[in-house]
Amino acid sequence: MNSKLPHLETTIFTAMSKLANENQAINLAQGFPDFDPHSSLIESLNYYSYQNYNQYAPMIGVEKLRNFIVAKVEKLHQTVYHPENEVTITNGASQAIFTAIAAVIEKGDEVIIFEPAYDLYKPAVEMFGGIVKPIRLTYPNYTIDYTKLKELITDKTKLVIFNNPNNPSGKIFTKDDLIQIETILKDKNCYIISDEVYEHMTFDQKEHQSFARIPSLKDRIFITASFGKLCHVTGWKVGYVLAGAELMKEFRKVHQFNVFSVHTPSQYAIANYLDDEHNYQELNDFFQQKRDYFVNGLSTTRFEIIPSEGTYFVSANYKNYSDLNDRAFAEELTIKNKVATIPFSAFYHDKFDENVIRFCFAKQEETLDAALERLNKL
Amino acid sequence: MNSKLPHLETTIFTAMSKLANENQAINLAQGFPDFDPHSSLIESLNYYSYQNYNQYAPMIGVEKLRNFIVAKVEKLHQTVYHPENEVTITNGASQAIFTAIAAVIEKGDEVIIFEPAYDLYKPAVEMFGGIVKPIRLTYPNYTIDYTKLKELITDKTKLVIFNNPNNPSGKIFTKDDLIQIETILKDKNCYIISDEVYEHMTFDQKEHQSFARIPSLKDRIFITASFGKLCHVTGWKVGYVLAGAELMKEFRKVHQFNVFSVHTPSQYAIANYLDDEHNYQELNDFFQQKRDYFVNGLSTTRFEIIPSEGTYFVSANYKNYSDLNDRAFAEELTIKNKVATIPFSAFYHDKFDENVIRFCFAKQEETLDAALERLNKL
Ligand SMILES: CSCCC(=O)C(=O)O
Ligand SMILES: CSCCC(=O)C(=O)O
Repeated sequence: MNSKLPHLETTIFTAMSKLANENQAINLAQGFPDFDPHSSLIESLNYYSYQNYNQYAPMIGVEKLRNFIVAKVEKLHQTVYHPENEVTITNGASQAIFTAIAAVIEKGDEVIIFEPAYDLYKPAVEMFGGIVKPIRLTYPNYTIDYTKLKELITDKTKLVIFNNPNNPSGKIFTKDDLIQIETILKDKNCYIISDEVYEHMTFDQKEHQSFARIPSLKDRIFITASFGKLCHVTGWKVGYVLAGAELMKEFRKVHQFNVFSVHTPSQYAIANYLDDEHNYQELNDFFQQKRDYFVNGLSTTRFEIIPSEGTYFVSANYKNYSDLNDRAFAEELTIKNKVATIPFSAFYHDKFDENVIRFCFAKQEETLDAALERLNKL
Repeated sequence: MNSKLPHLETTIFTAMSKLANENQAINLAQGFPDFDPHSSLIESLNYYSYQNYNQYAPMIGVEKLRNFIVAKVEKLHQTVYHPENEVTITNGASQAIFTAIAAVIEKGDEVIIFEPAYDLYKPAVEMFGGIVKPIRLTYPNYTIDYTKLKELITDKTKLVIFNNPNNPSGKIFTKDDLIQIETILKDKNCYIISDEVYEHMTFDQKEHQSFARIPSLKDRIFITASFGKLCHVTGWKVGYVLAGAELMKEFRKVHQFNVFSVHTPSQYAIANYLDDEHNYQELNDFFQQKRDYFVNGLSTTRFEIIPSEGTYFVSANYKNYSDLNDRAFAEELTIKNKVATIPFSAFYHDKFDENVIRFCFAKQEETLDAALERLNKL
């Protein structure tokens, strides 16, 4: 029988993590911390599983966790979401984004994606018959070309996918960017996904500007976020989506038949852990320190570092080392030098040859030290 | 903007659980146990989360758990699946079924579904543009009409969805049923999903006949199953899918962009727990005892019980009590008599009026006692 999705390949994160393991390389590729979550979070998981919170959670998610999200969003972004009708807990941000796309995209719909872009957006859109219209952020400052954006929008534009802070570039968009997008989309008939999984990893006093701050768009925007990133438990697969009530109804039509619900004791544990605000308010400083440490170590190499304003990641141009394309260079670096990274071309729709790789610095100092030692020997 | 899925409603399981909660009714509707899982499973979850198995699991699932599945299937069904290429761990069986449908169904494809059928099959098929061709199991014995089945198959038949043991009827299909289906589909160009989540809940010495016993179909069959059901942790959302290597590639193309991976410490905990075979071999007896207990209590009512050969469920015709349609009767029973059940019409595509409701008996004796007391007062 014929493949329905003949062109789809294995995601770059699986491919590079596999190559890293096979070559016993230090894995700075896939974005996850290699340090322990706070012990009180684990204790809390333990508590709720012993208390037998082990059966299906409600399809929309556990009430305590939904209430926490609503309170946090109101406090940080001054917009009130309804805890029962406008918040749904998901199996990580990936499932939130996939499900939002499934809920709105039909054959022939056009979807605007800012590149570099997380590698699930494009295949997920295409799976539902959508047509990806990529727009490149300028290199190397990753700003939005608003003239181009306006030109890209047509009657068929059904969705714009935005990611702030941006993975992989580390770019943080400003309130002015959000307002420009609002203005451009005001009279258009389209939805937005704002992927905000790195909302609490912003550096140098830069504030994260959530699309929740643009209430005029509430009825047509999905905001997605990740507790895996927020609590250092990427393997727990808990995220969430916010959307106006009507749009959330559409989301849940798909969600209920996709995963139905999310790991019950983890939802309670996270809600309990985040009752203490310090547990997420100190993240920016924590990751800024890691970024500074890693960038400092990298400054003695011949990599040309692209400044990172947020996320787990910093990227660099390697053209002083090699003429290989980025995938080949990243593979060689993994196999020969035992440091795994992500080639930037994985985040682009069309051919891309700007010789950039992405490093994940969400690691213990000893891991970063070992990687830096190898990179300084290149 | 228009809804992409205008006809989709909230799943019956969410609707009835919500009604049960609002009315403080005993919830024999949604299928989940109200008793604790084995403490060694909880201890194991605790152990692995403290050992910091808290980051992304591999996209295909944790090796130890995949190896367990392969060994179990070989032992029980004498077919060998490759642990790396032919098994994927999923966020519960629902996500496995949804993803399998996503991987193969395109606009215009026909999908044969045996009814009564679990309520996700139809909307999931339709979400991907498929056309549902329902075939009713005969009432009240729930046998397959093979002449009808043959007539339903056309050039456009892309998928047949089979469920054994059958939820909600409690029917167990025999090896002969599997062989008949094999014969009918031998020369046809279609896939099969065999939903086997109740594989370890079979009664009266009836053996579960997995489609894994029909190796000629391996390359075009998805077999889906649930650890939530097997280990009394429906809220952990861990299931799996088996398929021949080529077909599994197609599955993973979608899986990786849907949920990416599954709760890491739960996967390790389940693998560790199931190392002890007693932990699942005794399930049949355990649930048979519950079925017998509940059916015995129900026999003094005027419900006409439909025999249950397997699953968590037993169903009954209520026409001696009421002329209401089944949804109205189930709602009245929840609100007035404080016992929530599932109306059978939720499992049918077209109008259905055979006056049957489904009870879940996967409950502690005291829960069953309380429900039976209320039902005996009807
Ligand atoms: C789902 S694996 C990818 C994790 C991640 O967010 C990244 O590395 O960009
Ligand atoms: C996902 S909720 C439904 C659980 C179940 O399998 C059933 O009640 O039939």
